[in-house]
Amino acid sequence: MKTQYYTATSLDGFIASKDHSLQWLFDLGDPEEATFEAFFKNIGALAMGSHTFEWLMQNHVRPGTPEEQPWPYELPVWIFSSRKLTLPEGARIGLVDGDVRMAHREMVEAAGEKNLWIVGGGELVGQFFDAALLDEIIVQVAPALLGEGMPLLPRKTRAAQMTLADSRPLGAGFVELRYDMSY
Amino acid sequence: MKTQYYTATSLDGFIASKDHSLQWLFDLGDPEEATFEAFFKNIGALAMGSHTFEWLMQNHVRPGTPEEQPWPYELPVWIFSSRKLTLPEGARIGLVDGDVRMAHREMVEAAGEKNLWIVGGGELVGQFFDAALLDEIIVQVAPALLGEGMPLLPRKTRAAQMTLADSRPLGAGFVELRYDMSY
Repeated sequence: MKTQYYTATSLDGFIASKDHSLQWLFDLGDPEEATFEAFFKNIGALAMGSHTFEWLMQNHVRPGTPEEQPWPYELPVWIFSSRKLTLPEGARIGLVDGDVRMAHREMVEAAGEKNLWIVGGGELVGQFFDAALLDEIIVQVAPALLGEGMPLLPRKTRAAQMTLADSRPLGAGFVELRYDMSY
Repeated sequence: MKTQYYTATSLDGFIASKDHSLQWLFDLGDPEEATFEAFFKNIGALAMGSHTFEWLMQNHVRPGTPEEQPWPYELPVWIFSSRKLTLPEGARIGLVDGDVRMAHREMVEAAGEKNLWIVGGGELVGQFFDAALLDEIIVQVAPALLGEGMPLLPRKTRAAQMTLADSRPLGAGFVELRYDMSY
């Protein structure tokens, strides 16, 4: 069981614009040989912050519109937020306000042998990092600069805390980098 | 003749700490198969901002100390600054306060058939980018997060403005990414 942060980032280390939009990423086109399918097959539970959840709701689920879609995940999802959020009906979602360590234990149990995906944003991933619970960073570096936006992972690592495990070019000018974390 | 930005960066897009230090980078050890030698062989002129210059003076040249070293470059160097700087004697340094486009013409002439290296910082590189004069970004992504610091290149690119030309793992967990810029 590993706790993994899998995300796309701009070369200058932003995962979304200041208003939490991923439009910049879609504008670049899809990496052809995306690794998501193989990654996701081994995922047993997800965690995300409230902005990531709200972005998904507004841009994918779109409740109350003619384009409404079902909640995209059958896996259990933990949403970390200090705010009250309106959750989609019937989805396996737990709302958490508090220490990531307690939720992590529940997530590990729910995931069985499989891995945990911390979807984002960076501050939530940072809390798992602070608790020495983040095992891997898998990041698709996009051929783009944003200049400002939501940071990839707003923390400072020690020397030798990150070990490069793999690097591979994907399609559309993306490069995937994998790092193992140690504490 | 190409105008190139060659630099190391943290995974989260910082080239130096907030006080312009590169100590974080030296703490990581040297990439074994560094590409610097081959890169530098084709360089005919350099440009740098005042903070980069001052960092070099204080940490490498160290004038007035027992560890004093000669200015490291025989090639002509343009330093961009609105401040008065104390320049090392006998060095081929031009101090520029103004439009990068005018200095760029002089640099191209001085470089002959060779390339121009914009050493940094990011804001100076951004001015060459704004003037559509930056041809290549060659960046060694370090296995480290800084959380804050001096940005790699504080600008926003359009979709398809950056094309991945090469990616290769170096030693010590670094990965070098090369991008061609278009305008």
